[in-house]
Amino acid sequence: MIRVLYGFPPGVNPEKQGRMLAIGQTVGSFRPDEARRFESWTGVLEEASVDANGRGRALVAYPSANVSGDIGSLLVMILGKYSLAGPVRILSLDLPEGYGTRGRFGLAGIRELTGVRDRPLFMGIFKPALGLSPEDFAAILREVGMAGLDLIKDDEICPDTPASTALSRVRACRPVLDEIRRATGREMLYAVTLSGGASRMLDQARRLREAGANAYLVSPIACGFSVLESLASDPDTRLPIFAHPAMAGALGGSPDYGIDYRVLLGTLMIHGGADAVLYPTAAGSLPIDPGVEADLRRLLVASGLAPVPSAGIHPGALPKFLSPGDHRVILNAGTGLMDHPQGPAAGVRAFHEALELIKKSQPLDRDSVPEGPLRQAILKWGS
Amino acid sequence: MIRVLYGFPPGVNPEKQGRMLAIGQTVGSFRPDEARRFESWTGVLEEASVDANGRGRALVAYPSANVSGDIGSLLVMILGKYSLAGPVRILSLDLPEGYGTRGRFGLAGIRELTGVRDRPLFMGIFKPALGLSPEDFAAILREVGMAGLDLIKDDEICPDTPASTALSRVRACRPVLDEIRRATGREMLYAVTLSGGASRMLDQARRLREAGANAYLVSPIACGFSVLESLASDPDTRLPIFAHPAMAGALGGSPDYGIDYRVLLGTLMIHGGADAVLYPTAAGSLPIDPGVEADLRRLLVASGLAPVPSAGIHPGALPKFLSPGDHRVILNAGTGLMDHPQGPAAGVRAFHEALELIKKSQPLDRDSVPEGPLRQAILKWGS
Repeated sequence: MIRVLYGFPPGVNPEKQGRMLAIGQTVGSFRPDEARRFESWTGVLEEASVDANGRGRALVAYPSANVSGDIGSLLVMILGKYSLAGPVRILSLDLPEGYGTRGRFGLAGIRELTGVRDRPLFMGIFKPALGLSPEDFAAILREVGMAGLDLIKDDEICPDTPASTALSRVRACRPVLDEIRRATGREMLYAVTLSGGASRMLDQARRLREAGANAYLVSPIACGFSVLESLASDPDTRLPIFAHPAMAGALGGSPDYGIDYRVLLGTLMIHGGADAVLYPTAAGSLPIDPGVEADLRRLLVASGLAPVPSAGIHPGALPKFLSPGDHRVILNAGTGLMDHPQGPAAGVRAFHEALELIKKSQPLDRDSVPEGPLRQAILKWGS
Repeated sequence: MIRVLYGFPPGVNPEKQGRMLAIGQTVGSFRPDEARRFESWTGVLEEASVDANGRGRALVAYPSANVSGDIGSLLVMILGKYSLAGPVRILSLDLPEGYGTRGRFGLAGIRELTGVRDRPLFMGIFKPALGLSPEDFAAILREVGMAGLDLIKDDEICPDTPASTALSRVRACRPVLDEIRRATGREMLYAVTLSGGASRMLDQARRLREAGANAYLVSPIACGFSVLESLASDPDTRLPIFAHPAMAGALGGSPDYGIDYRVLLGTLMIHGGADAVLYPTAAGSLPIDPGVEADLRRLLVASGLAPVPSAGIHPGALPKFLSPGDHRVILNAGTGLMDHPQGPAAGVRAFHEALELIKKSQPLDRDSVPEGPLRQAILKWGS
């Protein structure tokens, strides 16, 4: 069974709504004498309750056989038409272990490819997001790669356009990735943004891999989980997939509607085929409940995916993301790396410097950190 | 340019947020001396205001060249990461006329295929939604098709599963569609639900068309607009596409978050390749603002698409959907047709009977309607 916990605002009867969901989102209407025939297709309301604040909850179990093993038909069943009936929010989703499509790499696969095994990974973002030439991409990549950055990605708003095709970016960057490997012994990953209709995106992904791309960036909530699923299962697109949370706030931001971030950026990404998931972080520049963020990270790690906290990350903030001995994270910085006062390479060095101090249990504050990239970063962005 | 009107709840400064959107969702950060270089990529805040209730609005214009001509990269640009920053709702979206993918049929094409030119079309839904055998599908189809139904669709929650493959449904129904054509001279359309990852859905769509399918049902908000775009442009899937609003409430229901229904079910469907769009109706069983519904219908009609009001439609409600001389609508009924006290064929006849009375400007009430299917429908569901 597929179990969904729904939340309702005060004034809504969760038992009534739970029954509507269990029937209306499965067999719908049938003649009373036919109930037995349709029993195996019918959802079951397992629990309903109202808390002290008047907020209702209903736990509904749906037969797994009612859906196609993908995220799209799952969403149609568990939220679908019912979403139009009034405020309802999916609080949690419990899928059978083998449900859906699983990423072929995960954090372990990304470590394998990059050869970085014993520390958190650092990821950068090409900035400015738009308007750079292929040569600009290559030059930025060379600078940050030689300085020790592990991964880099396009901005998610840098799609395939005539002025900047994804292919031109990969063709310009592949030789630089090779240079970096020769110089550092590490394969740096560059996640290139995929865009367009489904067929175009999948064709593009194949061509980009042939041209030397070594990772993809997709925004499943904006373009569809169905594309993520195909990318993650096609033998010709066997590369790590970084899933971006674009649009997640439109579905997850309201307390009364949509889908909790743990489900949207956790469960659905895990069972949709992502290898790494970017998500907003309360320690950065975006509002997300710290408890939700911690749960999401745990969920991703427990499923073998790479958690990638993003937005507002800078070197001085590193301690907020690391617990002793736990390196299972990719730290993703855009401006907090690229806009370092001494330039992007110094931005990369500042992150590594911060990590070294944390390893030695030394504080990251402006008074104790010696002069250098990290101190400059802390003077600009704090710690 | 692509123009987006954003709405903010009281307490949010629309001018500040509008500037953040214009820069943050385009080039992002750049050095002040580089502003000129990145100017053509940069969004522009054109207007910002706060109304008497404290609700803010910001109109932002984005360069069309920043996106790939699809819905996915458009959503990443106009809502994307910014959606995670706090409450924001897209109130309207103005796209260049030729933007995106347009449906190849629209209402005119559907009329051409079905041969129904001078009246509204009637659509039914196979019920119960799940648990029917291919033979059940064929038997129901024969009954309603011979009684004069123009179109029928799977329930959107009836995906491709081992227990009921889409191919088995089409194979069982194709000979019946032929029977109906021989008997009535009309080609009835059966919109079959597509499901699964993108590649599977597209492959399935091709195979279903080869097997005689003559229309598709997809849920673009759940599976991704990218699949809709590919279906609408691939030469091997050249069939009318009925877009279902599953999940629309999760994105459009909240007053403070997400996307207005006119944009979500109108603009995005129109520029994403749909031929017909199902939507909730205030005259039926789902809550939607009647003004929004009227705007949405006008928008779909003006773009040549078929508006398909759905959910809670029954024969007695017909006058609520018809204005004199305006036949540009497909009326979609599930239980309001299939659960007619005298059976599905009587349900179809009740709709035609209602239409005849409306043409003669006669009222549809229980006292004046003569005994027959329509009167039975009105006794059950009202008028």
